[in-house]
Amino acid sequence: MGGFHEGHLQLMRTARTECDRVVVSLFVNPTQFGEGEDFERYPRDLDRDAGLAESVGVDVLFAPTVEEIYPRPGSTIHVPVVSKLWEGAHRPGHFEGVATVVCKLFNMVRPEVAYFGLKDLQQCLVITRMVEDLNIPIRLSLQPTVRESDGLALSSRNAYLTKEERSLAPSLYKHLTACKDLLKASKLTHDEVDEALKHAKFQLEDEGFRADYFELIDLESAHSIRSIAMPCAIIAAAKLGKTRLIDNVVV
Amino acid sequence: MGGFHEGHLQLMRTARTECDRVVVSLFVNPTQFGEGEDFERYPRDLDRDAGLAESVGVDVLFAPTVEEIYPRPGSTIHVPVVSKLWEGAHRPGHFEGVATVVCKLFNMVRPEVAYFGLKDLQQCLVITRMVEDLNIPIRLSLQPTVRESDGLALSSRNAYLTKEERSLAPSLYKHLTACKDLLKASKLTHDEVDEALKHAKFQLEDEGFRADYFELIDLESAHSIRSIAMPCAIIAAAKLGKTRLIDNVVV
Repeated sequence: MGGFHEGHLQLMRTARTECDRVVVSLFVNPTQFGEGEDFERYPRDLDRDAGLAESVGVDVLFAPTVEEIYPRPGSTIHVPVVSKLWEGAHRPGHFEGVATVVCKLFNMVRPEVAYFGLKDLQQCLVITRMVEDLNIPIRLSLQPTVRESDGLALSSRNAYLTKEERSLAPSLYKHLTACKDLLKASKLTHDEVDEALKHAKFQLEDEGFRADYFELIDLESAHSIRSIAMPCAIIAAAKLGKTRLIDNVVV
Repeated sequence: MGGFHEGHLQLMRTARTECDRVVVSLFVNPTQFGEGEDFERYPRDLDRDAGLAESVGVDVLFAPTVEEIYPRPGSTIHVPVVSKLWEGAHRPGHFEGVATVVCKLFNMVRPEVAYFGLKDLQQCLVITRMVEDLNIPIRLSLQPTVRESDGLALSSRNAYLTKEERSLAPSLYKHLTACKDLLKASKLTHDEVDEALKHAKFQLEDEGFRADYFELIDLESAHSIRSIAMPCAIIAAAKLGKTRLIDNVVV
């Protein structure tokens, strides 16, 4: 969606080292924004983004207009279960918009490999599921979240934070890693896991966040779980002022 | 869906003359059948179908199992408007099943051209719309309906007809062509078009059909219309005993 930061550039550099041709799509997709979300004020600076993409060796910057992508209301893709939880519950229709536009971009660009950042973990799960379900002949490469030195996950939306909010923001990641360390250090009961997650959420609230969720999920279904037997992650979403931050750690 | 007849074979022959490699998919798709429909008793004879496909020079017969296509409940594709009308209204979920499986087969086979018969006109409209909406890089080739000498459109379901029903069945096409001739011969008012369609439906009922619809639709949206100004077709669905027949004529 543009507003390129080091997280995006790292994806591009990785693709550059692994692929013959690198195409970057830049499209602020209206269908994945809900009512009252930041579609209008989302950072847009095509010249800056084009310069950054070029600087890391991208071959093609594909920046279609809304009219090119959506000449009229069209077909949509519904990814079950994982689309409806967490971010999907908080942002109805969001992952339907994501899945549909990603499918369209895949068909337009026809990459062999597509790179996504794990910062948007649930988005990665939705796209993984869509690719499997619809037999889309593309390999997904999910790349680690790039962070500021204080741990804050890079995001275009960080630009919305006030100075005070920015100083608080890294706490989200601190609680995620602390909770992960706790879960991995000792074999907790289901009740203790539940308690640890609730405690972290409470602490965030205490520090001035408004936490939407702080959850342990399995990486297949995105369902909430209470033990780390299977591949899983801790995911969190919390608001600081008007800005909603999401982050996660894979356990 | 197998049960190959001359309509299918004609599609294969056309593909054979136009393409380097011809792949035929054979899959009785459970998700496009509704409750109480004929999924279980749908004609299945893989050896016979394979022999027929081979006889017209098909290179690959792709006949996956239900488990291969649907290892679990998965993502679905929703094509707006055209999916909800006529056959879509009569068979809820039918075109969602069709669109989804066709998208999957497209991604598995990755053809340059895909051939469909116009017998299932609304299916052709749904797939055309899906391909446009999702930018699927495939050219569709829609081929004329193949008919018996008495006009009955070839269909695997014709095998369900009793001898008496079979003798009545060609009347569906006769009314479609008669109505088309009437519409083309003289400039009718909207009321007169409406009257002609109702009259044809009434005549079918009088002959022993139970008619679901007999309608003039535009070929873009599949909406009912009352003048032939734009590309359009007359579509009809009617039951003879337990067997539901559909047919159409492009005007």
